[in-house]
Amino acid sequence: MEDTENLTRTNFEQLHRMSDRFKYIARSCKEILDNHSEREDGIYYLTTANGMKYQTFCDMNTAGGGWTLVASVHENSIYGRCTVGDRWSSQQGNNPNLPDGDGNWSNRNTFGLVESATSDDYKNPGYYDIAAEDVSVWHVPNNFPMEHWNLAAILRYHTENRFLRLYGGNLFNLFKQFPVRYNVGSCSNRGPAIPIVYDHGNMESTRNLYGPSSRKEFDPGFITFRAINNELGAMAICSGVKPRGCNSEHYCIGGGGYFHPDQCGDFPSFDWDRLGRDQGWSASKEMTESAVLLFYR
Amino acid sequence: MEDTENLTRTNFEQLHRMSDRFKYIARSCKEILDNHSEREDGIYYLTTANGMKYQTFCDMNTAGGGWTLVASVHENSIYGRCTVGDRWSSQQGNNPNLPDGDGNWSNRNTFGLVESATSDDYKNPGYYDIAAEDVSVWHVPNNFPMEHWNLAAILRYHTENRFLRLYGGNLFNLFKQFPVRYNVGSCSNRGPAIPIVYDHGNMESTRNLYGPSSRKEFDPGFITFRAINNELGAMAICSGVKPRGCNSEHYCIGGGGYFHPDQCGDFPSFDWDRLGRDQGWSASKEMTESAVLLFYR
Amino acid sequence: MEDTENLTRTNFEQLHRMSDRFKYIARSCKEILDNHSEREDGIYYLTTANGMKYQTFCDMNTAGGGWTLVASVHENSIYGRCTVGDRWSSQQGNNPNLPDGDGNWSNRNTFGLVESATSDDYKNPGYYDIAAEDVSVWHVPNNFPMEHWNLAAILRYHTENRFLRLYGGNLFNLFKQFPVRYNVGSCSNRGPAIPIVYDHGNMESTRNLYGPSSRKEFDPGFITFRAINNELGAMAICSGVKPRGCNSEHYCIGGGGYFHPDQCGDFPSFDWDRLGRDQGWSASKEMTESAVLLFYR
Repeated sequence: MEDTENLTRTNFEQLHRMSDRFKYIARSCKEILDNHSEREDGIYYLTTANGMKYQTFCDMNTAGGGWTLVASVHENSIYGRCTVGDRWSSQQGNNPNLPDGDGNWSNRNTFGLVESATSDDYKNPGYYDIAAEDVSVWHVPNNFPMEHWNLAAILRYHTENRFLRLYGGNLFNLFKQFPVRYNVGSCSNRGPAIPIVYDHGNMESTRNLYGPSSRKEFDPGFITFRAINNELGAMAICSGVKPRGCNSEHYCIGGGGYFHPDQCGDFPSFDWDRLGRDQGWSASKEMTESAVLLFYR
Repeated sequence: MEDTENLTRTNFEQLHRMSDRFKYIARSCKEILDNHSEREDGIYYLTTANGMKYQTFCDMNTAGGGWTLVASVHENSIYGRCTVGDRWSSQQGNNPNLPDGDGNWSNRNTFGLVESATSDDYKNPGYYDIAAEDVSVWHVPNNFPMEHWNLAAILRYHTENRFLRLYGGNLFNLFKQFPVRYNVGSCSNRGPAIPIVYDHGNMESTRNLYGPSSRKEFDPGFITFRAINNELGAMAICSGVKPRGCNSEHYCIGGGGYFHPDQCGDFPSFDWDRLGRDQGWSASKEMTESAVLLFYR
Repeated sequence: MEDTENLTRTNFEQLHRMSDRFKYIARSCKEILDNHSEREDGIYYLTTANGMKYQTFCDMNTAGGGWTLVASVHENSIYGRCTVGDRWSSQQGNNPNLPDGDGNWSNRNTFGLVESATSDDYKNPGYYDIAAEDVSVWHVPNNFPMEHWNLAAILRYHTENRFLRLYGGNLFNLFKQFPVRYNVGSCSNRGPAIPIVYDHGNMESTRNLYGPSSRKEFDPGFITFRAINNELGAMAICSGVKPRGCNSEHYCIGGGGYFHPDQCGDFPSFDWDRLGRDQGWSASKEMTESAVLLFYR
């Protein structure tokens, strides 16, 4: 077989070494790290409490390692308004009769394969199965291959205060306590805002990923769960920031099934003042065109 | 790792014991029961005739055991009219040009993972690959975790007369003989109605799961295949009942691609007289909000 | 277990022999052929460069064998205009704001299972992971079971000139060089047209699979990539032919996200002069109702 510009010759030794990883029986990357001292980032098989096997990516190095990739939020069309592919908000159109939208933040539905996590939405059984304490988040430009996710990320951070102990051990349970649902409360009813530690980027670079108007109403250095905006729309995650105002649709992702008519979607209104212009309430092009990868430890 | 309210500490012994189940090479849970005397409910790997492997749930105890979960019908939005997620009718809108809708009752398309079977539609290769004699049906409230499906079910029953021998050995073949297709016949052309044995519930409880008006036009104690209503719409399964009348859209599930304009969907018209009100033709809230799990033996 | 009309009794010896195939660690069917001398068509596990495992079909016999099935293009509704299921063009409606449509010709998204490849769209990691030289294409009637794909195909051919060496080793990279995007160029900017060798069928039968009007503007005996039509719509593959004219929407498949209002879809306008009538610009019914399976070697 010939070498080609973008594809390396199969390295049999490497393939066999990676396949050797599949012998582990563990519920999380943390268990593989702790029990087998595996320090190599990459794909491993995990097993749910019920014995279902699946493959996902383990980050075995950041801040001690043991991070399991459980989901990614990928905006397939910033122009779509809760259309096909908006699995983290709704694929049923902008619809007040469906306040929970697709409901994937708090159900056991899963979708996608690990290597596709920057090309489409991804959710594996670890999202609901793993008992975790902290989260890590990577913003990776769309369609980047797995082997370069770490280096390509425009923002990487994690929590360290074990906040998930207080919320049922994972986001599945956290969002049962703080439903991502239209009209469930007002702007003052947001969920927890947790301080973060930066692995790539900082408060200033976080700030600049969002629009100039947005920067005036959030504080960087946090990850916030279940924000609610002026129109009573609910969002799941404000990545890197804590809202001070109520226009969170411009800098928070995921959502219930109903928003202001021009806003429904996985990145509800990141393009309010034109796409990729970094003006007004519009987020930067690099933010809008990156997938948000969610890890547990 | 800390214990959390809803997640148990990993039991390594249990995980290893479950993983041991993956050594079997079998086409159905019945084969695993017969050849290896496994009596534990749970997830096993099966292999199709062509050698494709997949994971599903085996019920190894009901009425002798050996039941393979092959599919679930989950209504993701009772308000949707053959929209995204209506895989057991049509995701193309209510459309007379598509009389078969998505066609999943009689094709080899598959979707979903076993642990998600109560959170979204599910169909595995066993649906078309397994040679079976009987069916078992569980109605399990949406989003219930697998370990509690059996106890949480609002209705469980099975057939005992080996009727599938007459229809090609599974539903895939049965529905080739009785197409789930708009305008394929009239109300008198329904497919077989098979007597059932109750495992949880009875004729009276079955009756009460559907609307008061529906109760007047069906007989409980059966499972019926390919019903046709007054408007020539076709449905796949009337669970627990045999229609006497022609308004089967209120108590039969799945369908072709065209119905009365207000009815298309996986549970075509379970909400006719308002959702979850248990009045008129509307089914009970517990019925509408449960997934229908289909097993073969 | 009883035999049934369409389902054979489980052959345990055969199942065990097939399962034995799963021991190989290889990135392509070609590697399995070369390193293990496996000559049997069927399902094998492959492993990506990153160590992700998946199952697909290997054709170990055509023209020396070693062909890996990486994708299928299946038209689920010739009436849909870039609706649900049009993954090889767009599921977002016919939309000039989305010139790339779903973008699956040049991203790492994957969908479907190998046995469903004639019942729905299919794309596995091999599409982007394998370093290949040639392609093979099978047109298989919808819903045919895998064991009969080879015999049931209405057209089978392959390339022999190792053209993929020039385009990055696979279609994923080829379509990065020749984007399947609305308004990326004009009819004269099409991608490569590669001569083919027939394995079933010939130039005359290829010609007759398309409409009478189409036959006047293409040459059979080729596979062409990234055609562009009069309205600046882009298509991915003209199977079996090289366009001479600019009405390629009638005989080329896949596409970007925007076409003439009546044409968007995986088989954009194969039904222009009525479905399955083999008249005017309409392709034959057998062509329109067959899935296009894509192999690499």
